[in-house]
Amino acid sequence: KRARDYGVVIGVMRPGPLNSITDVAGVKVGHTTLIKGDSVRTGVTAILPHGGNIFQEKVPAAVYVGNGFGKLAGSTQVNELGNIETPIVLTNTLGVPTAMNALIGYTMQQSGNENAQSVNAVVGETNDGYLNDIRGRHVKEEDVIAAVGNARGGPVEEGVAGAGTGTICFGFKGGIGTASRKLPASLGGYTVGVLVQSNFGGALQVDGVPVGEQLKKFDFSDRLLQDVDGSCMIVVATDAPLDHRNLLRLAKRAMLGLGKTGGIASNGSGDYVIAFSVAEGLRIPHSGQSSTVSQTLLQNDAVSPLFMAVIEATEEAIINSLFTARHTTGRNGRQMEALPLNKVIPILQQHNSIRP
Amino acid sequence: KRARDYGVVIGVMRPGPLNSITDVAGVKVGHTTLIKGDSVRTGVTAILPHGGNIFQEKVPAAVYVGNGFGKLAGSTQVNELGNIETPIVLTNTLGVPTAMNALIGYTMQQSGNENAQSVNAVVGETNDGYLNDIRGRHVKEEDVIAAVGNARGGPVEEGVAGAGTGTICFGFKGGIGTASRKLPASLGGYTVGVLVQSNFGGALQVDGVPVGEQLKKFDFSDRLLQDVDGSCMIVVATDAPLDHRNLLRLAKRAMLGLGKTGGIASNGSGDYVIAFSVAEGLRIPHSGQSSTVSQTLLQNDAVSPLFMAVIEATEEAIINSLFTARHTTGRNGRQMEALPLNKVIPILQQHNSIRP
Amino acid sequence: KRARDYGVVIGVMRPGPLNSITDVAGVKVGHTTLIKGDSVRTGVTAILPHGGNIFQEKVPAAVYVGNGFGKLAGSTQVNELGNIETPIVLTNTLGVPTAMNALIGYTMQQSGNENAQSVNAVVGETNDGYLNDIRGRHVKEEDVIAAVGNARGGPVEEGVAGAGTGTICFGFKGGIGTASRKLPASLGGYTVGVLVQSNFGGALQVDGVPVGEQLKKFDFSDRLLQDVDGSCMIVVATDAPLDHRNLLRLAKRAMLGLGKTGGIASNGSGDYVIAFSVAEGLRIPHSGQSSTVSQTLLQNDAVSPLFMAVIEATEEAIINSLFTARHTTGRNGRQMEALPLNKVIPILQQHNSIRP
Amino acid sequence: KRARDYGVVIGVMRPGPLNSITDVAGVKVGHTTLIKGDSVRTGVTAILPHGGNIFQEKVPAAVYVGNGFGKLAGSTQVNELGNIETPIVLTNTLGVPTAMNALIGYTMQQSGNENAQSVNAVVGETNDGYLNDIRGRHVKEEDVIAAVGNARGGPVEEGVAGAGTGTICFGFKGGIGTASRKLPASLGGYTVGVLVQSNFGGALQVDGVPVGEQLKKFDFSDRLLQDVDGSCMIVVATDAPLDHRNLLRLAKRAMLGLGKTGGIASNGSGDYVIAFSVAEGLRIPHSGQSSTVSQTLLQNDAVSPLFMAVIEATEEAIINSLFTARHTTGRNGRQMEALPLNKVIPILQQHNSIRP
Repeated sequence: KRARDYGVVIGVMRPGPLNSITDVAGVKVGHTTLIKGDSVRTGVTAILPHGGNIFQEKVPAAVYVGNGFGKLAGSTQVNELGNIETPIVLTNTLGVPTAMNALIGYTMQQSGNENAQSVNAVVGETNDGYLNDIRGRHVKEEDVIAAVGNARGGPVEEGVAGAGTGTICFGFKGGIGTASRKLPASLGGYTVGVLVQSNFGGALQVDGVPVGEQLKKFDFSDRLLQDVDGSCMIVVATDAPLDHRNLLRLAKRAMLGLGKTGGIASNGSGDYVIAFSVAEGLRIPHSGQSSTVSQTLLQNDAVSPLFMAVIEATEEAIINSLFTARHTTGRNGRQMEALPLNKVIPILQQHNSIRP
Repeated sequence: KRARDYGVVIGVMRPGPLNSITDVAGVKVGHTTLIKGDSVRTGVTAILPHGGNIFQEKVPAAVYVGNGFGKLAGSTQVNELGNIETPIVLTNTLGVPTAMNALIGYTMQQSGNENAQSVNAVVGETNDGYLNDIRGRHVKEEDVIAAVGNARGGPVEEGVAGAGTGTICFGFKGGIGTASRKLPASLGGYTVGVLVQSNFGGALQVDGVPVGEQLKKFDFSDRLLQDVDGSCMIVVATDAPLDHRNLLRLAKRAMLGLGKTGGIASNGSGDYVIAFSVAEGLRIPHSGQSSTVSQTLLQNDAVSPLFMAVIEATEEAIINSLFTARHTTGRNGRQMEALPLNKVIPILQQHNSIRP
Repeated sequence: KRARDYGVVIGVMRPGPLNSITDVAGVKVGHTTLIKGDSVRTGVTAILPHGGNIFQEKVPAAVYVGNGFGKLAGSTQVNELGNIETPIVLTNTLGVPTAMNALIGYTMQQSGNENAQSVNAVVGETNDGYLNDIRGRHVKEEDVIAAVGNARGGPVEEGVAGAGTGTICFGFKGGIGTASRKLPASLGGYTVGVLVQSNFGGALQVDGVPVGEQLKKFDFSDRLLQDVDGSCMIVVATDAPLDHRNLLRLAKRAMLGLGKTGGIASNGSGDYVIAFSVAEGLRIPHSGQSSTVSQTLLQNDAVSPLFMAVIEATEEAIINSLFTARHTTGRNGRQMEALPLNKVIPILQQHNSIRP
Repeated sequence: KRARDYGVVIGVMRPGPLNSITDVAGVKVGHTTLIKGDSVRTGVTAILPHGGNIFQEKVPAAVYVGNGFGKLAGSTQVNELGNIETPIVLTNTLGVPTAMNALIGYTMQQSGNENAQSVNAVVGETNDGYLNDIRGRHVKEEDVIAAVGNARGGPVEEGVAGAGTGTICFGFKGGIGTASRKLPASLGGYTVGVLVQSNFGGALQVDGVPVGEQLKKFDFSDRLLQDVDGSCMIVVATDAPLDHRNLLRLAKRAMLGLGKTGGIASNGSGDYVIAFSVAEGLRIPHSGQSSTVSQTLLQNDAVSPLFMAVIEATEEAIINSLFTARHTTGRNGRQMEALPLNKVIPILQQHNSIRP
């Protein structure tokens, strides 16, 4: 069950129907979950901005570097040209090159891309080396292709799934989480959806309640957390017609949502936000017939509700990743417990944070 | 009374003795508060990294732009050269040039600076035009000089004071606030102090409790807030030996503290963080005799506790600015109520957030 | 006479009819030249993107920081919001605040701006303190207003004029220079115009010919130059429909033109490029009725010819500033000779760089 | 033969003994050149900052993005942490992931790195798809390991070698080039070395002489060039004790050297500069025993001569890449002629640019 199912209501805005990144029209998500033997606990998650040929119909995009201790591939081109031309793939730190190779192959083989000689693969990662034999580099190109291939709309599997299979968050089992917000029609009616791969530390707060402190589990109280080479990948989708500049601003706000869960973007954390718009009028053709393009864009003055939306959705997506993750045994018999909801819910109740 | 006096305890780290930016050794703060007639509600706040000649003994520094809808002066030179060479002055939006002129004059007249031909004045601002006749440009050079002149260590006046005289925050009277954190000796024993000029909107949370929501006062529920051209200036001081790069990282984290109060860095908000180190071994002489300098710097691996510290101190400084501000009448008879503590404290109690 | 009048032809593209920033439709330039007594050698140059109310009809813009040892005002807001809302003013380093105050007053007093409470004045500077009594701060608000007021289209006065009155470049008298390029119709027919305030050092090259070396006047051969606290302000105008992102890319290329004259963007140089588009369809209303706007923009694929154009025009504008500047006596009887064309032209002839 | 062997003397500073990046003490360069059958024309070039375990003894570093249409791996971590922890590898665009995988494997297998779970591979690229069957992805991990393994000091093979095997520059065969500058003892005696992988367009200038124009071969005169998806990788080494901030400034200046050859950093060009310092006192241990480190750093005031040095060395390295490259036949029988020195030298002589 997700946080909202327990009566945890984060923020003041309403979620979309699925409370998921897939509430943004056309966005698809796919996982490959790799759990093998004693020590393979990793995977791949793919996010597709639309169901067509992304290389031929690029989408406006931006990457914001919250803390750059990470290996995200593709950021400089995304920010120079203002667009994304492949599916977005998340995996483990040492799996990035393999995922890039897979995306390059996938793109070159798509119908219409026969002449593509340059592909900007966008691949994010966090380090799941505590539970996973990361040095074994168990993610293979076919695992990446599978995640892209099984991507679909509808509810997204959260917790111990895909790129979240082996991750740790606030000293508990982390993973994949998602959430969304839908603006009222008076503010444009746009949807903002977020998907996270949570793998970082700090002092956990759930809807503002200092759960980590009460559980005596927070950074600098606990050696374990300091040893984790954490990170958080945040993918933001919206149907609002934003160009690169305003997508970058939107991406930047997602970090405030991370902060609200108690994250601190520690030195060793690779925190990146990738934001894109699916607004159909903003697609960028790979080969334009014309040197100019006509676009309808949201003005600066109208973006603030989207900023609030992305903060709320990021916070809730991270909390969802914790609520849905389950206890996991991994490398060298290491155990990572799930967030103990039997203790957390009472704490939230004591703080009057459970809605009926 | 400040938040902590009511039993509101933000975060897991301990504050310094004054819970103030002046806990950082040598830092001085001065105010000029301008309340005249019906419509002058503005002022100046000066923060001095040390008590000597700052131009001759520059300090390592960085400016992080949270949201650049603002007129902060001096940022590009601070980030290129990695240092600050004047007091930091905060005032209202249209008072920036006058404050710059004052700082230039102040610097040129200091003993030892007789040949200075170039001065990088660092001046931040927020827009107090709701309560203050900002178009009247009532801040004069002598007001700025006075704030610099009366700067001192010890407790800092908060709330309706200095550059916070006319500001608004979350639909209530905002102002100046400060707080600090002191790391345990095992983590270096460093102090991080923060001072804010709060003038922004969002959905107020006090120590995680959704106070704004419960008071029915939050962005997009309230027309007023959208009309405010807000902003938040955040000044961060530390005695940790950080160079420009790590100060920029520290500054970046302060925005997470703003986020935790419910701020969203809205389109119209000019949110800037200025961070500096007072570590004596890091002073940069204006005219070095040598082409090289020897420094002892904190390593990357040791900065994370400072990140947590700055997040907590920023959050608490903003909350302090609200707790200490009082009801103010200003331009055109406009009223701005103080945060209604008689309602807020019970809300916090209901959420189990008041410590005995 | 300008460089081209001597047969110096820089680059492979054609200039516009005036070979000036005013070839870009609607752009106006005005100067106030302050030469008083023995030691006032300074001034103001104003560049207006169009002849209307710029605050009400903002233009897309970007600021690129080539080297940030400078006091340029307004850059963070320009880059956050992607636009400029005042005339661009250039002056001396210590005159920046006064020019800001003037622009704020000018804007607030314009018809239609009666409610403006926030104005982002864009003011650039270089340090003319070798020839000018810069500490005297002789630029007054009325001088700035006068430069804005006398701005017009048509030929621009170059050399010892406006903000270039007291500047030094490559050890010779520098000043204001301008140039332009017009693309062939097959590449869009757009115009790029550049205006510079030249005040920097290096090893002068004129159309690639090592003139500085041959005159034995280049950095690190000459103590004088190292003592100059130089800078170069570069203003780029175009009628190509570029948004902020591509204007920033355009601005970045202007530095390559500076490099081609032998500039090195030395530590003490404040090198900034301000680029804007006058394309009428891209004006940003101060108060939009609609939350969205429709625009026709140039695609990424079509910007490269503009990049070449801005490089060529910047190089030629700097060379023009040197060719048109004349010998100047200033503060403390200091002399600054003009580029000795009687020696330079023969050098260029020896290098086969004078076209008939 | 290299440019200087023909009497082409670029700039006013002296080169190091080898006029090569390997003049910087300890720097090693290795190539793997892949020429197979009709259509494999590619390769790998590795640059090692020192001969030890780079992961355990990281070097201060910075990456500057001249134009981000490229796939450079590792930039965000280099700029966040301010260091490099692997050899720098250059290859073709689609070979980046394979090179990353190779560097990860190389690093994990080095003695002392048995516990490494996170490796930030730095890999740059340009697109050699005109001459090379780039879609065939012929670079294998062993080719990368071989380049790292055969890296050594001493003279560097230039032209059609390593990552320059299939590249094109200004419409002629490009490739690898290198050059260096050594400051006089009075300016610190430091060395700056540059290595380039040249693959871009513009209007070629050799020592300022408009060779491209005279050969009627320049951008926008020639369809071919517009179709090339070019790029230039620039690697800068120095023994000057620079931290990340000043290395970033140094890297930024290298682009001015590219500009002086006639490069324009076109839309489709991925132009990146990677700069590092080999100063021994600045090595960053992977696991520090201490939370602080003592360093001797060059002051801001002393960096300008290094800026001039990197501009000159970059210009000369690019020219060397052209002078040393030879005619190459590649994919689909395509021909790429070498720079026709039999025409170029006379042009330079006519422009009085050949020194006796």
